[in-house]
Amino acid sequence: MALIVQKFGGTSVGSPEKICLIADRISKSYYDHNQMVVVVSAMGDTTDELIQLAQRVSVCPPHREMDMLLTAGERISMSLLSMALADRKVLAISLTGSQSGIITDQSHRRARILKILGDRVRAGLSNNKVVIVAGFQGVSESREVTTLGRGGSDTSAVALAAILRADRCEIYTDVDGVFSADPRRVPQAKLWKRVSHDVMVELATRGAGVLHPRSVELAKQYQVPLRVKNSLNDHEGTMIGPRKSTQKADGESDMEEFGVTGTTFDSNKFLVRVKLSRSTVLNSLWDLASHLHLSVVAPVFSEGEVWFFSDREAEGEWRRSLEELVRDGFIQSYRLCMETVPLSVVGDRFSQDGKALYEVISVLEKENIQVTLGSASALAITVGVSQNRAEDGVKALHKEFLEDRV
Amino acid sequence: MALIVQKFGGTSVGSPEKICLIADRISKSYYDHNQMVVVVSAMGDTTDELIQLAQRVSVCPPHREMDMLLTAGERISMSLLSMALADRKVLAISLTGSQSGIITDQSHRRARILKILGDRVRAGLSNNKVVIVAGFQGVSESREVTTLGRGGSDTSAVALAAILRADRCEIYTDVDGVFSADPRRVPQAKLWKRVSHDVMVELATRGAGVLHPRSVELAKQYQVPLRVKNSLNDHEGTMIGPRKSTQKADGESDMEEFGVTGTTFDSNKFLVRVKLSRSTVLNSLWDLASHLHLSVVAPVFSEGEVWFFSDREAEGEWRRSLEELVRDGFIQSYRLCMETVPLSVVGDRFSQDGKALYEVISVLEKENIQVTLGSASALAITVGVSQNRAEDGVKALHKEFLEDRV
Repeated sequence: MALIVQKFGGTSVGSPEKICLIADRISKSYYDHNQMVVVVSAMGDTTDELIQLAQRVSVCPPHREMDMLLTAGERISMSLLSMALADRKVLAISLTGSQSGIITDQSHRRARILKILGDRVRAGLSNNKVVIVAGFQGVSESREVTTLGRGGSDTSAVALAAILRADRCEIYTDVDGVFSADPRRVPQAKLWKRVSHDVMVELATRGAGVLHPRSVELAKQYQVPLRVKNSLNDHEGTMIGPRKSTQKADGESDMEEFGVTGTTFDSNKFLVRVKLSRSTVLNSLWDLASHLHLSVVAPVFSEGEVWFFSDREAEGEWRRSLEELVRDGFIQSYRLCMETVPLSVVGDRFSQDGKALYEVISVLEKENIQVTLGSASALAITVGVSQNRAEDGVKALHKEFLEDRV
Repeated sequence: MALIVQKFGGTSVGSPEKICLIADRISKSYYDHNQMVVVVSAMGDTTDELIQLAQRVSVCPPHREMDMLLTAGERISMSLLSMALADRKVLAISLTGSQSGIITDQSHRRARILKILGDRVRAGLSNNKVVIVAGFQGVSESREVTTLGRGGSDTSAVALAAILRADRCEIYTDVDGVFSADPRRVPQAKLWKRVSHDVMVELATRGAGVLHPRSVELAKQYQVPLRVKNSLNDHEGTMIGPRKSTQKADGESDMEEFGVTGTTFDSNKFLVRVKLSRSTVLNSLWDLASHLHLSVVAPVFSEGEVWFFSDREAEGEWRRSLEELVRDGFIQSYRLCMETVPLSVVGDRFSQDGKALYEVISVLEKENIQVTLGSASALAITVGVSQNRAEDGVKALHKEFLEDRV
């Protein structure tokens, strides 16, 4: 008997009919004598609809109330799934983040999990129940309802799997696993059987929507066997695991045989440019980002100027904070380039290949795609391009690195 | 400085625009230096929409999960209202039933309040905040989320007012107060300045939707000054208070000058007829209803047969329970007359007027409305009529007792 944590995202629970399909899948696993914890997101566009409602009553909704509002979303999907299971004679119980004992810090809308008590989850399992847990949500030590931010349900699932010492954690989505590019945009994209934690974090940080980077980092830290699967078929999906120390010859779909795992862009991010008054202020800039839980991707420092990508939804916070730093004389000026998004090639061998950044830029220039800035790290090359050319860029890079060179 | 509990129903919070109107009203009271607790229902048709979602995933949804689902409704309205207040620079905090310490028994979907801890409500008030509480919901001692059943938000509001020793409890609705008939159906209906607790319970039990009978009983028991008001204007509404011992001459809109306070029907109820095997079984029938929290209105016992009205939504439960009593030989047969609804005349003087039942029946017969059964108590005459003639019946009775006789 295995203990399995399964996570179903918003698309997978997008309608009553889809919830019934998932209930079929879960009851099959359950009748195969597995212990099951199921983490769900809110149905389809529920979260966006709730945000729109908030915007119709308030110019600047308090984060505490925003969390109270948004957590209604998983409450609906989890109770519906539990009902659908009851209809299939599967004992099930739904638990909110708070009831599951998912304790977070106090940062509303972007809370971090501090610990998971999980008493009621364990009690449900020992009563032979499928335990359905609301993803994305938790409760602070002062008993306030919090949410984990974008991709939070993945993090909930992996954290639960870690604390329960689950045999595996399965993240269900609407594609067959991790591809070398978004298969809805690039039909030639390859499906990988296996991707290392480190490469997956880079891919996810740079826009591969299939998994949230925090969940991958957690899976690495707690050695949770993690798999990305399609909720609509029985394809085995992609295993996310440790980096292999030796090469293994198990066919061309094993990503470790190639230098490049994927090409991706992230239209939820934008470029921030800051002219510093003195370079020592750089640390306070990173402290600020860390304090506000804002992401900083692919930072470049050059001649008193720093460039990086951050979350589009944090535009207001960046603007306020940078305005203050200008006023206090710490920085000379800043620019938020809302139209510039990060476009990346992620892989495992860039550290050994100094030419990669140059190659990326020349492929894009051949397509008349202008590159604003570029940087290379061990596992990724990231350049800034105009949002409306990003998809063309991904296609060109995928063709160069993943089709023509194989 | 007064402590006021206000309750806004589903229509009053039916859209972001209406929520903003309510926020204006609340902030006005708040800036008049009042302490405010605001109880809200789910927005408009949210509860019905959630029930429909449940029916699309499950034939017979478990009540525990139904409560989990439905409580998403108030979560949405309360956090939106709190945001709208924040926009008006009014400090506010929304609390779920559980966070407010509204402790109930374990009867999912029809729970009764056992006690209210209210620590976080008091803390919010002493921090000068408007405290917004989710109506309709509570938590059992085993930490399961429960709901109070139809009209539960009224009960939440009055119970909170009782426990907080509020100076007054205001129930906001979409009409100006308590009328002698539903003003949307009977344009001649009179608005009362004052109605006694006892008469209000009878009116509410028999279909006057303006207040839930349990809330009125609670208000009587704990001496909570209760007022029904219109959320869209500043009309003073109707005061629900103790019966006056002496006549008071404050104009013709004081209900105590008349015998009849109102005429009403209840299309949410239906007629149950049970043929008993022996009359001692009657007690077990009432025990059953009380155990299942099913309402029994205007029961009549005659020649080994009992007739009464109960909630339409409890049809399945009555059918199952009565089927079992037939099988065990306690009752001979039963009939659920889904098309027969209770039509009532409620007032204060029927005990002194034996002719009232006869008069009611003759008024209806003159209109060719067939009366299935009828009974009279001290405060109300109730007859059973066909659902599609009930509105005609209310109009005829209102004309006879409240227009022609004044």
